[in-house]
Amino acid sequence: MPELRKDPIVGRWVIIATDRAKRPSDFLREPVTTTSGRFCPFCEGNEDKTPPEILGWRQNGLGKDQRGWSLRVVPNKFPALGIEGELARQGEGLFDKMNGVGAHEVIIETPLHNMTLAQLPEKRVEDVLWAYRDRMLDLKKDKRFRYILTFKNHGEAAGASLEHTHSQLIALPVVPIYVREEVEGAKLYFNFKERCIFCDIIRQESVSNARVIQETEHFLVLAPYAPRFPFETWVLPKQHEASFENSQSHVFENLAKVLKQLLQKLDQVLEYPPYNYVLHTSPLTENTQDYYHWHLEVMPKLTKVAGFEWGSGFYINPTPPEESARFLREASLTEPVGEAKPALSV
Amino acid sequence: MPELRKDPIVGRWVIIATDRAKRPSDFLREPVTTTSGRFCPFCEGNEDKTPPEILGWRQNGLGKDQRGWSLRVVPNKFPALGIEGELARQGEGLFDKMNGVGAHEVIIETPLHNMTLAQLPEKRVEDVLWAYRDRMLDLKKDKRFRYILTFKNHGEAAGASLEHTHSQLIALPVVPIYVREEVEGAKLYFNFKERCIFCDIIRQESVSNARVIQETEHFLVLAPYAPRFPFETWVLPKQHEASFENSQSHVFENLAKVLKQLLQKLDQVLEYPPYNYVLHTSPLTENTQDYYHWHLEVMPKLTKVAGFEWGSGFYINPTPPEESARFLREASLTEPVGEAKPALSV
Repeated sequence: MPELRKDPIVGRWVIIATDRAKRPSDFLREPVTTTSGRFCPFCEGNEDKTPPEILGWRQNGLGKDQRGWSLRVVPNKFPALGIEGELARQGEGLFDKMNGVGAHEVIIETPLHNMTLAQLPEKRVEDVLWAYRDRMLDLKKDKRFRYILTFKNHGEAAGASLEHTHSQLIALPVVPIYVREEVEGAKLYFNFKERCIFCDIIRQESVSNARVIQETEHFLVLAPYAPRFPFETWVLPKQHEASFENSQSHVFENLAKVLKQLLQKLDQVLEYPPYNYVLHTSPLTENTQDYYHWHLEVMPKLTKVAGFEWGSGFYINPTPPEESARFLREASLTEPVGEAKPALSV
Repeated sequence: MPELRKDPIVGRWVIIATDRAKRPSDFLREPVTTTSGRFCPFCEGNEDKTPPEILGWRQNGLGKDQRGWSLRVVPNKFPALGIEGELARQGEGLFDKMNGVGAHEVIIETPLHNMTLAQLPEKRVEDVLWAYRDRMLDLKKDKRFRYILTFKNHGEAAGASLEHTHSQLIALPVVPIYVREEVEGAKLYFNFKERCIFCDIIRQESVSNARVIQETEHFLVLAPYAPRFPFETWVLPKQHEASFENSQSHVFENLAKVLKQLLQKLDQVLEYPPYNYVLHTSPLTENTQDYYHWHLEVMPKLTKVAGFEWGSGFYINPTPPEESARFLREASLTEPVGEAKPALSV
């Protein structure tokens, strides 16, 4: 069983693998990645090479772990956390730890190996979002969990160990430190202004327009004012809602549209960059509805700079958000950008 | 002039380059690195290829920006911040910004291109530490600065853009968010216990010994209880002191010894890994002496996982600190490890 340990100074929880611990020699070889033509456990026909599926979307009558699916959710074969057991919170002198209890699932977004999320039809992207929601609603029932972290690593440089397009979901018995900071920051602002800071940002950015990449009826896609990374992009729902999984159904439909377009634009402007995205949503057991506002943060992996930023929390961003917004705004897709406008009446 | 901008939600300041902003195409080519045999502005004889030196250590009578040095400090040719001008703090609706005023200096640790810090004689490593101190004491006089961030990127994968061994120092008009969190965390503990949390950690770790890599009269080198990265290592002075630059002279001598040994051990156990280290020291304009405790955090760059951790603050560490401590403790160096023990009297 892995262990969750808390840094006693800043309060950051980390997962420490204890079972299959990596020895120094494990770091000397680059991990082998599945490349096209090699065996891939996420491809159709290899359903028996993953743990049994938790969720599978099929048009026809074929059963669980059979062919014919358009999307599968399976447990991670090498989970960071174990699903069984008690948390067993305990001290170790001045330190705090608990068992590494949690869920670690993989959302296989398509049976096709050579597709990216950006290339999938809008409806399939929407299915991925519905899968996030369904899994979140299900995992929420487990009272041991405090947070569900949903994210995607695309490309080896962004940490994807398998090429076949997929997302991951980790249910945690603790709240990650950045989530804690974001929630507390939003709460502080609410206490001061009695308004949601994200709603205020949406209003101000929509008016100034300098950092807006796309605005639709339901979403604002923007380069944030103080981005850590070049081309960092946030996708904010205009309707205030703390928890992604509580969104109304049209929200998923609209998010699929703007997310696909954003990823296509990144592909066009940055020539198919590796990227990560992280779904920022409310902790499970706290009532943050007044002041928190779920959103998606997309970070292309363009620069090598690494440990220093990790170690200091200090970022030097060589691309102003006004510039990255302009490049992405001006990218022309073959498909129409933005929501369809009503035809001019003659 | 670059801009410092604050994230309104979590309060993180970032530097946004505005002058020579990177366009999308700049990210498509890997940065060219100087490799052995190619031109290097940090090598002896190329003193005129760097901005004029701020500090130079020479044994003989040769002057500034001439040959014959053992260490040089020069302004970064491509500084992240500009040294001239007022801070001009101002709002932009709900956002906050100021001019990117600061200093960005490079410590060239040796005239020899093919040496690493681990390979330099102990006395030369000590010189590097004295150079940090001297520059910190000098920059501290500038009342615009709130923090001096001293760090080293070793190896391209760790973000070093030049191969020739060097450290960097950035004087900032703001306190980086991790420093803020660490200082506030330590203060909270002090308010509760009336003891320094770092001193408590040193005492507990020294007794348990499970994560100790080396203990000398003046330093404890240890794998922290909740490390973010495999083989993350902290070097803690036993004497309580908030500010690195206020340490007594024997501290620099002793730190040079343990730092060199640690880097040699990392080289041996992990086969010359890229790494970063960050000097954690007190903010300049705050009295943290009671509760803060300077130290050095060393992070080998072994794993590729990147943006996801950046985005979530959530770390999965595949190597328990007890394991990494054991590997580093057991590494045998050709030079004796630990401080010389008195010879047994016969």
